[in-house]
Amino acid sequence: MAKFIHRRRFTIEWGHCDPAGIVFNSRFFEFFDWGTWMLFEAALGVKPSELAAAFGIAGMPLVDAGARFLAPARFGDQVELSSHIREFRRSSFDVEHRLLVGTTVAVEGHETRVWAARDPADPAKMKSQPIPAEVTARFRA
Amino acid sequence: MAKFIHRRRFTIEWGHCDPAGIVFNSRFFEFFDWGTWMLFEAALGVKPSELAAAFGIAGMPLVDAGARFLAPARFGDQVELSSHIREFRRSSFDVEHRLLVGTTVAVEGHETRVWAARDPADPAKMKSQPIPAEVTARFRA
Amino acid sequence: MAKFIHRRRFTIEWGHCDPAGIVFNSRFFEFFDWGTWMLFEAALGVKPSELAAAFGIAGMPLVDAGARFLAPARFGDQVELSSHIREFRRSSFDVEHRLLVGTTVAVEGHETRVWAARDPADPAKMKSQPIPAEVTARFRA
Amino acid sequence: MAKFIHRRRFTIEWGHCDPAGIVFNSRFFEFFDWGTWMLFEAALGVKPSELAAAFGIAGMPLVDAGARFLAPARFGDQVELSSHIREFRRSSFDVEHRLLVGTTVAVEGHETRVWAARDPADPAKMKSQPIPAEVTARFRA
Repeated sequence: MAKFIHRRRFTIEWGHCDPAGIVFNSRFFEFFDWGTWMLFEAALGVKPSELAAAFGIAGMPLVDAGARFLAPARFGDQVELSSHIREFRRSSFDVEHRLLVGTTVAVEGHETRVWAARDPADPAKMKSQPIPAEVTARFRA
Repeated sequence: MAKFIHRRRFTIEWGHCDPAGIVFNSRFFEFFDWGTWMLFEAALGVKPSELAAAFGIAGMPLVDAGARFLAPARFGDQVELSSHIREFRRSSFDVEHRLLVGTTVAVEGHETRVWAARDPADPAKMKSQPIPAEVTARFRA
Repeated sequence: MAKFIHRRRFTIEWGHCDPAGIVFNSRFFEFFDWGTWMLFEAALGVKPSELAAAFGIAGMPLVDAGARFLAPARFGDQVELSSHIREFRRSSFDVEHRLLVGTTVAVEGHETRVWAARDPADPAKMKSQPIPAEVTARFRA
Repeated sequence: MAKFIHRRRFTIEWGHCDPAGIVFNSRFFEFFDWGTWMLFEAALGVKPSELAAAFGIAGMPLVDAGARFLAPARFGDQVELSSHIREFRRSSFDVEHRLLVGTTVAVEGHETRVWAARDPADPAKMKSQPIPAEVTARFRA
Protein backbone atom coordinates (compact mmCIF):
# COMPACT_ATOMS: atom_id res chain seq x y z
CA MET A 1 0.00 0.00 0.00
CA ALA A 2 1.67 3.15 -1.26
CA LYS A 3 1.11 6.01 1.08
CA PHE A 4 -0.73 8.95 -0.37
CA ILE A 5 1.03 12.07 0.90
CA HIS A 6 -0.04 15.66 0.47
CA ARG A 7 2.61 18.37 0.61
CA ARG A 8 1.94 22.06 0.99
CA ARG A 9 4.67 24.69 0.93
CA PHE A 10 4.05 28.05 2.50
CA THR A 11 5.76 30.86 4.34
CA ILE A 12 5.59 31.63 8.03
CA GLU A 13 3.83 34.96 8.52
CA TRP A 14 4.42 37.68 11.09
CA GLY A 15 0.99 37.08 12.56
CA HIS A 16 1.81 33.39 13.14
CA CYS A 17 4.60 34.30 15.55
CA ASP A 18 4.68 35.17 19.23
CA PRO A 19 6.91 37.47 21.29
CA ALA A 20 9.63 34.79 21.28
CA GLY A 21 9.74 35.29 17.51
CA ILE A 22 8.60 31.75 16.76
CA VAL A 23 5.33 30.28 15.57
CA PHE A 24 2.79 30.19 18.40
CA ASN A 25 1.80 26.60 19.05
CA SER A 26 -1.89 26.91 18.23
CA ARG A 27 -1.04 27.93 14.67
CA PHE A 28 0.40 24.48 13.97
CA PHE A 29 -2.99 22.98 14.72
CA GLU A 30 -4.51 25.35 12.15
CA PHE A 31 -1.90 24.11 9.68
CA PHE A 32 -2.75 20.47 10.47
CA ASP A 33 -6.45 21.07 9.96
CA TRP A 34 -5.79 22.55 6.56
CA GLY A 35 -3.37 19.72 5.74
CA THR A 36 -6.10 17.18 6.34
CA TRP A 37 -8.63 18.96 4.11
CA MET A 38 -6.01 19.26 1.35
CA LEU A 39 -5.05 15.62 1.70
CA PHE A 40 -8.66 14.55 1.21
CA GLU A 41 -9.09 16.90 -1.72
CA ALA A 42 -5.97 15.48 -3.37
CA ALA A 43 -6.97 11.85 -2.77
CA LEU A 44 -10.69 12.10 -3.51
CA GLY A 45 -10.79 14.87 -6.06
CA VAL A 46 -13.52 16.65 -4.09
CA LYS A 47 -13.24 20.22 -2.83
CA PRO A 48 -13.16 20.45 0.97
CA SER A 49 -16.31 22.55 0.98
CA GLU A 50 -18.13 19.81 -0.96
CA LEU A 51 -16.68 16.81 0.85
CA ALA A 52 -19.48 16.44 3.37
CA ALA A 53 -22.21 16.66 0.73
CA ALA A 54 -20.37 14.32 -1.64
CA PHE A 55 -20.23 11.53 0.93
CA GLY A 56 -23.41 12.12 2.88
CA ILE A 57 -21.60 13.05 6.06
CA ALA A 58 -21.80 16.10 8.27
CA GLY A 59 -18.03 16.33 8.71
CA MET A 60 -14.91 14.72 10.08
CA PRO A 61 -14.87 15.94 13.69
CA LEU A 62 -11.58 15.87 15.52
CA VAL A 63 -11.44 13.72 18.62
CA ASP A 64 -7.71 13.83 19.36
CA ALA A 65 -4.79 16.02 18.29
CA GLY A 66 -1.23 16.39 19.40
CA ALA A 67 2.16 17.69 18.39
CA ARG A 68 5.80 17.45 19.29
CA PHE A 69 7.74 20.66 18.82
CA LEU A 70 11.29 19.72 17.85
CA ALA A 71 12.68 22.93 16.39
CA PRO A 72 11.31 26.44 16.02
CA ALA A 73 9.80 27.92 12.86
CA ARG A 74 10.32 31.65 12.45
CA PHE A 75 8.90 34.60 10.54
CA GLY A 76 9.76 34.26 6.87
CA ASP A 77 10.73 30.58 7.02
CA GLN A 78 9.75 28.57 3.98
CA VAL A 79 8.13 25.46 5.36
CA GLU A 80 6.66 22.26 3.98
CA LEU A 81 3.75 20.50 5.62
CA SER A 82 3.33 16.85 4.61
CA SER A 83 0.19 14.99 5.65
CA HIS A 84 -0.83 11.38 5.21
CA ILE A 85 -3.22 8.83 6.66
CA ARG A 86 -1.53 6.54 9.14
CA GLU A 87 -4.50 4.27 9.63
CA PHE A 88 -8.10 3.91 8.59
CA ARG A 89 -10.34 2.11 11.05
CA ARG A 90 -14.03 1.27 10.64
CA SER A 91 -15.29 4.80 11.28
CA SER A 92 -12.27 6.80 12.38
CA PHE A 93 -8.77 7.48 11.10
CA ASP A 94 -5.43 8.92 12.06
CA VAL A 95 -3.64 11.62 10.10
CA GLU A 96 0.07 12.28 10.53
CA HIS A 97 1.55 15.68 9.83
CA ARG A 98 5.16 16.74 9.59
CA LEU A 99 6.40 20.30 9.21
CA LEU A 100 9.83 20.80 7.71
CA VAL A 101 11.90 23.98 7.88
CA GLY A 102 14.47 23.31 5.20
CA THR A 103 15.49 19.72 5.90
CA THR A 104 14.81 19.96 9.65
CA VAL A 105 11.68 18.40 11.08
CA ALA A 106 10.29 21.22 13.20
CA VAL A 107 6.98 19.69 14.25
CA GLU A 108 5.38 16.25 14.17
CA GLY A 109 1.63 16.18 14.63
CA HIS A 110 -1.28 13.82 14.56
CA GLU A 111 -5.02 14.03 14.43
CA THR A 112 -7.71 11.42 15.00
CA ARG A 113 -10.97 12.14 13.25
CA VAL A 114 -14.33 10.48 12.94
CA TRP A 115 -16.36 9.95 9.77
CA ALA A 116 -19.65 11.29 11.02
CA ALA A 117 -23.21 12.03 9.96
CA ARG A 118 -26.04 13.74 11.76
CA ASP A 119 -27.60 11.42 14.31
CA PRO A 120 -31.09 10.58 12.98
CA ALA A 121 -32.31 10.39 16.58
CA ASP A 122 -30.96 13.87 17.41
CA PRO A 123 -29.82 16.07 14.50
CA ALA A 124 -27.91 18.31 16.91
CA LYS A 125 -25.51 15.41 17.46
CA MET A 126 -23.04 13.60 15.25
CA LYS A 127 -22.89 9.83 14.88
CA SER A 128 -19.94 7.88 13.48
CA GLN A 129 -20.40 6.09 10.16
CA PRO A 130 -18.41 3.34 8.44
CA ILE A 131 -15.86 4.90 6.12
CA PRO A 132 -16.80 3.84 2.56
CA ALA A 133 -14.37 1.45 0.84
CA GLU A 134 -14.29 3.84 -2.13
CA VAL A 135 -12.76 6.44 0.16
CA THR A 136 -10.06 4.29 1.72
CA ALA A 137 -9.21 2.81 -1.70
CA ARG A 138 -8.30 6.25 -3.05
CA PHE A 139 -5.57 6.65 -0.46
CA ARG A 140 -3.96 3.41 -1.57
CA ALA A 141 -3.66 4.28 -5.25
CA MET B 1 -30.05 60.20 25.83
CA ALA B 2 -27.71 58.51 28.23
CA LYS B 3 -25.23 56.36 26.42
CA PHE B 4 -25.30 52.69 27.32
CA ILE B 5 -21.67 51.60 27.63
CA HIS B 6 -20.37 48.10 28.14
CA ARG B 7 -16.97 47.65 29.77
CA ARG B 8 -14.97 44.47 29.80
CA ARG B 9 -11.66 44.08 31.63
CA PHE B 10 -9.25 41.38 30.59
CA THR B 11 -5.57 40.59 30.34
CA ILE B 12 -3.43 40.56 27.23
CA GLU B 13 -2.28 37.01 26.56
CA TRP B 14 1.00 35.72 25.14
CA GLY B 15 -0.82 34.36 22.11
CA HIS B 16 -2.28 37.81 21.35
CA CYS B 17 1.20 39.25 20.79
CA ASP B 18 3.54 39.29 17.83
CA PRO B 19 7.35 39.25 17.56
CA ALA B 20 7.43 42.97 18.40
CA GLY B 21 5.98 41.98 21.78
CA ILE B 22 2.74 43.88 21.22
CA VAL B 23 -0.79 42.80 20.41
CA PHE B 24 -1.07 41.83 16.74
CA ASN B 25 -3.57 44.13 15.06
CA SER B 26 -6.11 41.49 14.03
CA ARG B 27 -6.66 40.58 17.68
CA PHE B 28 -8.21 43.99 18.36
CA PHE B 29 -10.89 43.22 15.81
CA GLU B 30 -11.63 40.01 17.69
CA PHE B 31 -11.95 42.11 20.85
CA PHE B 32 -14.30 44.55 19.11
CA ASP B 33 -16.52 41.75 17.86
CA TRP B 34 -16.84 40.39 21.37
CA GLY B 35 -17.44 43.88 22.72
CA THR B 36 -20.43 44.30 20.43
CA TRP B 37 -21.99 40.99 21.45
CA MET B 38 -21.50 41.85 25.12
CA LEU B 39 -22.96 45.30 24.64
CA PHE B 40 -26.12 43.85 23.13
CA GLU B 41 -26.37 41.25 25.85
CA ALA B 42 -26.06 43.94 28.50
CA ALA B 43 -28.60 46.23 26.86
CA LEU B 44 -31.16 43.66 25.74
CA GLY B 45 -30.76 40.98 28.37
CA VAL B 46 -30.45 38.31 25.69
CA LYS B 47 -27.50 35.95 25.39
CA PRO B 48 -25.47 36.50 22.22
CA SER B 49 -26.16 32.98 21.05
CA GLU B 50 -29.91 33.63 21.34
CA LEU B 51 -29.95 37.15 19.97
CA ALA B 52 -30.72 36.20 16.39
CA ALA B 53 -33.59 33.89 17.37
CA ALA B 54 -34.99 36.39 19.87
CA PHE B 55 -35.37 39.10 17.24
CA GLY B 56 -36.06 37.06 14.13
CA ILE B 57 -32.83 38.03 12.45
CA ALA B 58 -30.03 35.93 11.00
CA GLY B 59 -27.31 38.12 12.49
CA MET B 60 -25.67 41.52 12.54
CA PRO B 61 -23.15 41.25 9.69
CA LEU B 62 -20.25 43.64 9.70
CA VAL B 63 -19.96 45.95 6.72
CA ASP B 64 -17.19 48.26 7.90
CA ALA B 65 -14.55 48.14 10.62
CA GLY B 66 -11.53 50.22 11.47
CA ALA B 67 -9.09 51.10 14.19
CA ARG B 68 -6.51 53.68 15.15
CA PHE B 69 -3.57 52.29 17.07
CA LEU B 70 -2.37 54.99 19.42
CA ALA B 71 -0.24 53.11 21.94
CA PRO B 72 0.86 49.49 22.22
CA ALA B 73 -0.72 46.85 24.46
CA ARG B 74 1.69 44.22 25.73
CA PHE B 75 1.67 40.73 27.22
CA GLY B 76 0.23 40.86 30.72
CA ASP B 77 -1.32 44.31 30.39
CA GLN B 78 -4.64 44.73 32.15
CA VAL B 79 -6.89 46.39 29.63
CA GLU B 80 -10.43 47.70 29.53
CA LEU B 81 -12.54 47.61 26.41
CA SER B 82 -15.50 49.97 26.42
CA SER B 83 -18.12 49.69 23.68
CA HIS B 84 -21.18 51.79 22.91
CA ILE B 85 -23.54 52.56 20.06
CA ARG B 86 -22.67 55.80 18.34
CA GLU B 87 -25.69 55.83 16.08
CA PHE B 88 -28.68 53.73 15.16
CA ARG B 89 -29.99 54.23 11.65
CA ARG B 90 -33.02 52.54 10.07
CA SER B 91 -31.37 49.17 9.55
CA SER B 92 -27.72 49.66 10.43
CA PHE B 93 -25.72 51.03 13.33
CA ASP B 94 -22.26 52.12 14.38
CA VAL B 95 -20.44 50.77 17.41
CA GLU B 96 -17.51 52.59 18.94
CA HIS B 97 -14.82 50.74 20.88
CA ARG B 98 -12.02 52.07 23.02
CA LEU B 99 -9.27 50.01 24.58
CA LEU B 100 -7.52 51.45 27.61
CA VAL B 101 -4.19 50.28 29.03
CA GLY B 102 -4.29 51.88 32.46
CA THR B 103 -5.48 55.39 31.68
CA THR B 104 -3.96 55.46 28.20
CA VAL B 105 -6.19 55.03 25.18
CA ALA B 106 -4.33 52.39 23.20
CA VAL B 107 -6.83 51.74 20.43
CA GLU B 108 -9.97 53.41 19.10
CA GLY B 109 -12.16 51.26 16.90
CA HIS B 110 -15.47 51.32 15.13
CA GLU B 111 -17.76 48.85 13.46
CA THR B 112 -20.76 49.34 11.20
CA ARG B 113 -23.23 46.48 11.27
CA VAL B 114 -26.51 45.67 9.61
CA TRP B 115 -29.64 44.28 11.25
CA ALA B 116 -30.28 41.46 8.82
CA ALA B 117 -32.60 38.54 8.15
CA ARG B 118 -32.47 35.83 5.52
CA ASP B 119 -33.61 37.14 2.18
CA PRO B 120 -36.97 35.40 1.47
CA ALA B 121 -36.12 35.48 -2.23
CA ASP B 122 -32.76 33.75 -1.65
CA PRO B 123 -32.10 32.24 1.78
CA ALA B 124 -28.37 32.09 1.04
CA LYS B 125 -28.37 35.90 1.21
CA MET B 126 -28.97 38.39 3.97
CA LYS B 127 -31.36 41.33 3.71
CA SER B 128 -31.36 44.37 5.96
CA GLN B 129 -34.34 44.86 8.26
CA PRO B 130 -35.60 47.89 10.20
CA ILE B 131 -34.16 47.82 13.70
CA PRO B 132 -37.11 47.43 16.10
CA ALA B 133 -37.87 50.42 18.33
CA GLU B 134 -37.80 48.10 21.34
CA VAL B 135 -34.14 47.44 20.58
CA THR B 136 -33.00 51.02 20.17
CA ALA B 137 -35.01 52.05 23.23
CA ARG B 138 -33.00 49.70 25.44
CA PHE B 139 -29.78 51.53 24.62
CA ARG B 140 -31.26 54.81 25.77
CA ALA B 141 -32.35 53.65 29.20
CA MET C 1 1.03 16.72 48.23
CA ALA C 2 -1.95 18.95 47.61
CA LYS C 3 -2.32 19.81 43.99
CA PHE C 4 -2.28 23.49 43.14
CA ILE C 5 -5.05 24.05 40.59
CA HIS C 6 -5.82 27.21 38.70
CA ARG C 7 -9.35 27.76 37.44
CA ARG C 8 -10.41 30.35 34.92
CA ARG C 9 -14.00 30.91 33.86
CA PHE C 10 -14.76 32.55 30.58
CA THR C 11 -17.25 32.63 27.75
CA ILE C 12 -16.87 31.09 24.30
CA GLU C 13 -16.78 33.88 21.74
CA TRP C 14 -18.15 33.99 18.19
CA GLY C 15 -14.63 34.30 16.82
CA HIS C 16 -13.57 31.09 18.60
CA CYS C 17 -16.04 29.03 16.58
CA ASP C 18 -15.94 27.47 13.13
CA PRO C 19 -18.61 26.82 10.51
CA ALA C 20 -19.76 23.77 12.50
CA GLY C 21 -20.68 26.24 15.25
CA ILE C 22 -18.19 24.78 17.71
CA VAL C 23 -14.84 25.97 19.00
CA PHE C 24 -12.14 25.44 16.38
CA ASN C 25 -9.52 23.08 17.77
CA SER C 26 -6.55 25.45 17.68
CA ARG C 27 -8.33 27.80 20.08
CA PHE C 28 -8.12 25.21 22.85
CA PHE C 29 -4.34 25.31 22.58
CA GLU C 30 -4.50 29.08 23.05
CA PHE C 31 -6.61 28.47 26.14
CA PHE C 32 -4.08 25.93 27.47
CA ASP C 33 -1.17 28.34 26.97
CA TRP C 34 -2.96 30.99 28.94
CA GLY C 35 -3.92 28.44 31.60
CA THR C 36 -0.26 27.61 32.15
CA TRP C 37 0.76 31.24 32.52
CA MET C 38 -2.09 31.86 34.96
CA LEU C 39 -1.20 28.74 36.95
CA PHE C 40 2.37 29.95 37.38
CA GLU C 41 1.21 33.42 38.31
CA ALA C 42 -1.13 32.00 40.94
CA ALA C 43 1.48 29.66 42.40
CA LEU C 44 4.52 31.93 42.26
CA GLY C 45 2.95 35.35 42.68
CA VAL C 46 4.83 36.65 39.68
CA LYS C 47 3.15 38.21 36.66
CA PRO C 48 3.58 36.14 33.48
CA SER C 49 5.38 38.99 31.77
CA GLU C 50 7.91 39.08 34.61
CA LEU C 51 8.29 35.35 35.12
CA ALA C 52 11.33 34.92 32.89
CA ALA C 53 13.20 37.82 34.46
CA ALA C 54 12.28 36.76 38.00
CA PHE C 55 13.83 33.33 37.56
CA GLY C 56 16.67 34.04 35.16
CA ILE C 57 15.13 32.03 32.36
CA ALA C 58 14.30 32.92 28.79
CA GLY C 59 10.98 31.11 28.89
CA MET C 60 9.16 27.81 29.20
CA PRO C 61 9.14 26.54 25.61
CA LEU C 62 6.55 23.95 24.70
CA VAL C 63 7.90 20.63 23.46
CA ASP C 64 4.70 18.59 23.40
CA ALA C 65 0.99 19.36 23.45
CA GLY C 66 -2.13 17.34 22.91
CA ALA C 67 -5.85 17.26 23.49
CA ARG C 68 -8.80 14.92 23.48
CA PHE C 69 -12.05 16.48 22.33
CA LEU C 70 -14.87 14.79 24.20
CA ALA C 71 -17.78 17.16 23.73
CA PRO C 72 -18.24 20.38 21.79
CA ALA C 73 -18.09 23.89 23.23
CA ARG C 74 -20.33 26.41 21.49
CA PHE C 75 -20.74 30.17 21.11
CA GLY C 76 -21.91 31.66 24.38
CA ASP C 77 -21.04 28.62 26.52
CA GLN C 78 -19.74 29.45 29.97
CA VAL C 79 -16.68 27.28 30.41
CA GLU C 80 -14.14 26.60 33.13
CA LEU C 81 -10.53 25.78 32.37
CA SER C 82 -8.66 24.09 35.20
CA SER C 83 -4.90 23.67 34.95
CA HIS C 84 -2.43 21.94 37.23
CA ILE C 85 1.07 20.45 37.16
CA ARG C 86 1.00 16.70 36.76
CA GLU C 87 4.74 16.25 37.21
CA PHE C 88 7.88 18.25 37.69
CA ARG C 89 11.06 16.61 36.42
CA ARG C 90 14.59 17.97 36.64
CA SER C 91 14.20 20.57 33.90
CA SER C 92 10.81 19.91 32.34
CA PHE C 93 7.26 19.52 33.51
CA ASP C 94 3.80 18.41 32.43
CA VAL C 95 0.69 20.55 32.73
CA GLU C 96 -2.78 19.08 32.58
CA HIS C 97 -5.75 21.11 31.42
CA ARG C 98 -9.44 20.32 31.57
CA LEU C 99 -12.20 22.38 30.03
CA LEU C 100 -15.67 22.01 31.46
CA VAL C 101 -18.91 23.13 29.83
CA GLY C 102 -21.28 23.05 32.77
CA THR C 103 -20.41 19.75 34.41
CA THR C 104 -19.35 18.06 31.17
CA VAL C 105 -15.65 17.60 30.43
CA ALA C 106 -15.41 18.93 26.90
CA VAL C 107 -11.64 18.81 26.41
CA GLU C 108 -8.69 17.25 28.20
CA GLY C 109 -5.30 18.66 27.31
CA HIS C 110 -1.68 18.41 28.26
CA GLU C 111 1.49 20.33 27.65
CA THR C 112 5.11 19.44 28.27
CA ARG C 113 7.37 22.43 28.76
CA VAL C 114 11.04 23.01 29.45
CA TRP C 115 12.55 25.41 31.99
CA ALA C 116 15.03 27.10 29.69
CA ALA C 117 17.65 29.82 29.58
CA ARG C 118 19.67 31.24 26.72
CA ASP C 119 22.47 28.89 25.78
CA PRO C 120 25.72 30.68 26.78
CA ALA C 121 27.44 29.03 23.82
CA ASP C 122 24.81 30.31 21.36
CA PRO C 123 22.34 32.94 22.61
CA ALA C 124 20.05 32.20 19.66
CA LYS C 125 19.35 28.84 21.26
CA MET C 126 17.64 27.76 24.45
CA LYS C 127 19.15 25.34 26.95
CA SER C 128 17.24 23.48 29.64
CA GLN C 129 17.93 24.39 33.27
CA PRO C 130 17.16 22.62 36.54
CA ILE C 131 13.84 23.86 37.89
CA PRO C 132 14.58 25.60 41.22
CA ALA C 133 13.29 23.89 44.35
CA GLU C 134 11.67 27.18 45.37
CA VAL C 135 9.49 26.93 42.27
CA THR C 136 8.36 23.34 42.68
CA ALA C 137 7.75 23.93 46.39
CA ARG C 138 5.18 26.62 45.65
CA PHE C 139 3.00 24.16 43.77
CA ARG C 140 2.87 21.87 46.80
CA ALA C 141 1.69 24.49 49.24
CA MET D 1 4.01 56.59 -12.03
CA ALA D 2 3.17 52.95 -12.58
CA LYS D 3 1.71 51.37 -9.50
CA PHE D 4 3.58 48.40 -8.10
CA ILE D 5 0.95 45.82 -7.17
CA HIS D 6 1.48 42.56 -5.36
CA ARG D 7 -1.02 39.76 -5.87
CA ARG D 8 -1.33 36.68 -3.76
CA ARG D 9 -3.76 33.85 -4.49
CA PHE D 10 -4.82 31.52 -1.74
CA THR D 11 -7.71 29.43 -0.50
CA ILE D 12 -10.05 30.24 2.35
CA GLU D 13 -9.54 27.68 5.10
CA TRP D 14 -12.05 26.12 7.50
CA GLY D 15 -10.29 27.78 10.43
CA HIS D 16 -10.73 31.22 8.83
CA CYS D 17 -14.51 30.94 9.00
CA ASP D 18 -17.06 31.58 11.72
CA PRO D 19 -20.41 29.99 12.57
CA ALA D 20 -22.03 31.98 9.76
CA GLY D 21 -19.78 30.02 7.40
CA ILE D 22 -17.91 33.11 6.23
CA VAL D 23 -14.45 34.47 6.96
CA PHE D 24 -14.34 36.06 10.42
CA ASN D 25 -13.46 39.72 10.06
CA SER D 26 -10.19 39.68 12.00
CA ARG D 27 -8.73 37.21 9.50
CA PHE D 28 -8.83 39.84 6.77
CA PHE D 29 -6.52 42.01 8.83
CA GLU D 30 -4.10 39.08 9.05
CA PHE D 31 -4.30 38.83 5.26
CA PHE D 32 -3.62 42.57 4.90
CA ASP D 33 -0.58 42.39 7.15
CA TRP D 34 0.87 39.61 5.08
CA GLY D 35 0.00 41.47 1.88
CA THR D 36 2.06 44.44 3.02
CA TRP D 37 5.10 42.33 3.85
CA MET D 38 4.85 40.56 0.48
CA LEU D 39 4.48 43.85 -1.34
CA PHE D 40 7.68 45.18 0.22
CA GLU D 41 9.51 41.96 -0.52
CA ALA D 42 8.44 42.12 -4.15
CA ALA D 43 9.36 45.78 -4.54
CA LEU D 44 12.60 45.84 -2.56
CA GLY D 45 13.88 42.33 -3.07
CA VAL D 46 14.40 41.93 0.65
CA LYS D 47 12.85 39.15 2.71
CA PRO D 48 10.33 40.44 5.27
CA SER D 49 12.37 39.01 8.13
CA GLU D 50 15.39 41.01 6.92
CA LEU D 51 13.60 44.21 6.01
CA ALA D 52 14.16 45.97 9.30
CA ALA D 53 17.88 45.15 9.38
CA ALA D 54 18.37 46.06 5.71
CA PHE D 55 17.04 49.57 6.22
CA GLY D 56 18.09 50.32 9.78
CA ILE D 57 14.55 50.44 11.08
CA ALA D 58 12.84 48.59 13.89
CA GLY D 59 9.69 47.98 11.87
CA MET D 60 6.69 49.49 10.14
CA PRO D 61 4.18 49.81 12.97
CA LEU D 62 0.53 50.08 12.03
CA VAL D 63 -1.24 53.24 13.14
CA ASP D 64 -4.53 52.84 11.29
CA ALA D 65 -6.38 50.02 9.59
CA GLY D 66 -9.83 49.56 8.20
CA ALA D 67 -11.95 47.49 5.88
CA ARG D 68 -15.23 47.49 4.04
CA PHE D 69 -16.89 44.11 3.74
CA LEU D 70 -18.79 44.03 0.48
CA ALA D 71 -19.39 40.34 -0.10
CA PRO D 72 -18.66 37.22 1.93
CA ALA D 73 -15.73 34.86 1.38
CA ARG D 74 -16.44 31.23 2.26
CA PHE D 75 -14.59 28.03 3.07
CA GLY D 76 -12.84 26.75 -0.05
CA ASP D 77 -13.12 30.00 -2.01
CA GLN D 78 -10.14 30.79 -4.19
CA VAL D 79 -9.32 34.39 -3.47
CA GLU D 80 -6.82 36.96 -4.70
CA LEU D 81 -5.42 39.65 -2.46
CA SER D 82 -3.90 42.61 -4.29
CA SER D 83 -1.91 45.18 -2.34
CA HIS D 84 -0.31 48.44 -3.40
CA ILE D 85 0.96 51.69 -1.93
CA ARG D 86 -1.56 54.49 -2.27
CA GLU D 87 0.74 57.18 -0.94
CA PHE D 88 4.17 57.65 0.52
CA ARG D 89 4.55 60.62 2.85
CA ARG D 90 7.71 61.75 4.62
CA SER D 91 7.73 59.00 7.24
CA SER D 92 4.44 57.17 6.82
CA PHE D 93 2.53 55.52 4.02
CA ASP D 94 -0.85 54.07 3.09
CA VAL D 95 -1.36 50.58 1.72
CA GLU D 96 -4.52 49.59 -0.10
CA HIS D 97 -5.71 46.01 -0.18
CA ARG D 98 -8.44 44.39 -2.23
CA LEU D 99 -9.67 40.85 -1.87
CA LEU D 100 -11.39 39.27 -4.84
CA VAL D 101 -13.54 36.15 -4.80
CA GLY D 102 -13.65 35.29 -8.48
CA THR D 103 -14.32 38.68 -10.07
CA THR D 104 -16.25 40.04 -7.08
CA VAL D 105 -14.56 42.51 -4.75
CA ALA D 106 -15.30 40.99 -1.34
CA VAL D 107 -13.24 43.29 0.86
CA GLU D 108 -11.45 46.61 0.48
CA GLY D 109 -8.91 47.42 3.13
CA HIS D 110 -6.32 49.99 4.02
CA GLU D 111 -3.43 50.32 6.41
CA THR D 112 -1.39 53.32 7.48
CA ARG D 113 2.08 52.47 8.69
CA VAL D 114 5.08 54.37 9.96
CA TRP D 115 8.71 53.90 8.95
CA ALA D 116 10.20 53.69 12.43
CA ALA D 117 13.44 53.18 14.27
CA ARG D 118 14.19 52.79 17.95
CA ASP D 119 14.08 56.13 19.70
CA PRO D 120 17.70 56.89 20.74
CA ALA D 121 16.35 58.68 23.81
CA ASP D 122 14.27 55.64 24.87
CA PRO D 123 14.93 52.34 23.09
CA ALA D 124 11.62 50.97 24.37
CA LYS D 125 9.90 53.44 22.05
CA MET D 126 9.72 53.82 18.31
CA LYS D 127 10.40 57.05 16.45
CA SER D 128 9.37 57.82 12.88
CA GLN D 129 12.10 58.21 10.27
CA PRO D 130 12.13 59.70 6.78
CA ILE D 131 11.43 56.96 4.23
CA PRO D 132 14.57 56.66 2.06
CA ALA D 133 14.22 57.76 -1.57
CA GLU D 134 15.71 54.43 -2.63
CA VAL D 135 12.68 52.74 -1.06
CA THR D 136 9.98 54.90 -2.61
CA ALA D 137 11.75 54.74 -5.98
CA ARG D 138 11.40 50.96 -6.10
CA PHE D 139 7.62 51.21 -5.98
CA ARG D 140 7.60 53.45 -9.04
CA ALA D 141 9.61 51.15 -11.28
